[in-house]
Amino acid sequence: MLLELKYDEKGLIPAIIQDAENGDVLMMAYMNESSLKMTIDTGFTHFWSRSRQKYWKKGETSGNLQEVKEIFYDCDADALLIKVKQHGGVACHTGNRTCFFRKIELK
Amino acid sequence: MLLELKYDEKGLIPAIIQDAENGDVLMMAYMNESSLKMTIDTGFTHFWSRSRQKYWKKGETSGNLQEVKEIFYDCDADALLIKVKQHGGVACHTGNRTCFFRKIELK
Repeated sequence: MLLELKYDEKGLIPAIIQDAENGDVLMMAYMNESSLKMTIDTGFTHFWSRSRQKYWKKGETSGNLQEVKEIFYDCDADALLIKVKQHGGVACHTGNRTCFFRKIELK
Repeated sequence: MLLELKYDEKGLIPAIIQDAENGDVLMMAYMNESSLKMTIDTGFTHFWSRSRQKYWKKGETSGNLQEVKEIFYDCDADALLIKVKQHGGVACHTGNRTCFFRKIELK
């Protein structure tokens, strides 16, 4: 089933991370096939850091691990939606609960 | 404020579309700076189609327009979260309410 996913030219697929309890979108990060497998095998989110070019287990240093509850993929098979229990209640490295804490003004 | 957003090497930024009413993540698509401006100016989502290489106003043919309620951007300024009122109740071209209707089995 994983084989039908479409990774981009860099071998990456975007993963939207959503709080399974309240529905808040917490962050978006990229996975490659290996980090997705680590995520499935361990039950905790693992990503591929494009800036550092390495794997990272979310919360490995902060303790704010993300326990995977459900994983969905979209109609084009080129995006993931992962519902998690956010340990520590904080997903963003800035200390905010969600990475999407800044707003663009509408007209 | 839009200037501080980080577009990728193709001039695109991923936009997560979330139902403002029930928190469902409906879809993920890409915007460039112009389609984001169209989105802000008109109050309805506009994207850039990577496969068709053209702008598309979501719902223009189906009638399932997305009325923008709030736009957020993340800590890295390289992803958008847009909360919408989903007209017609259906976001996905497959007829499903959300594009994320398929699940990956966990261990």
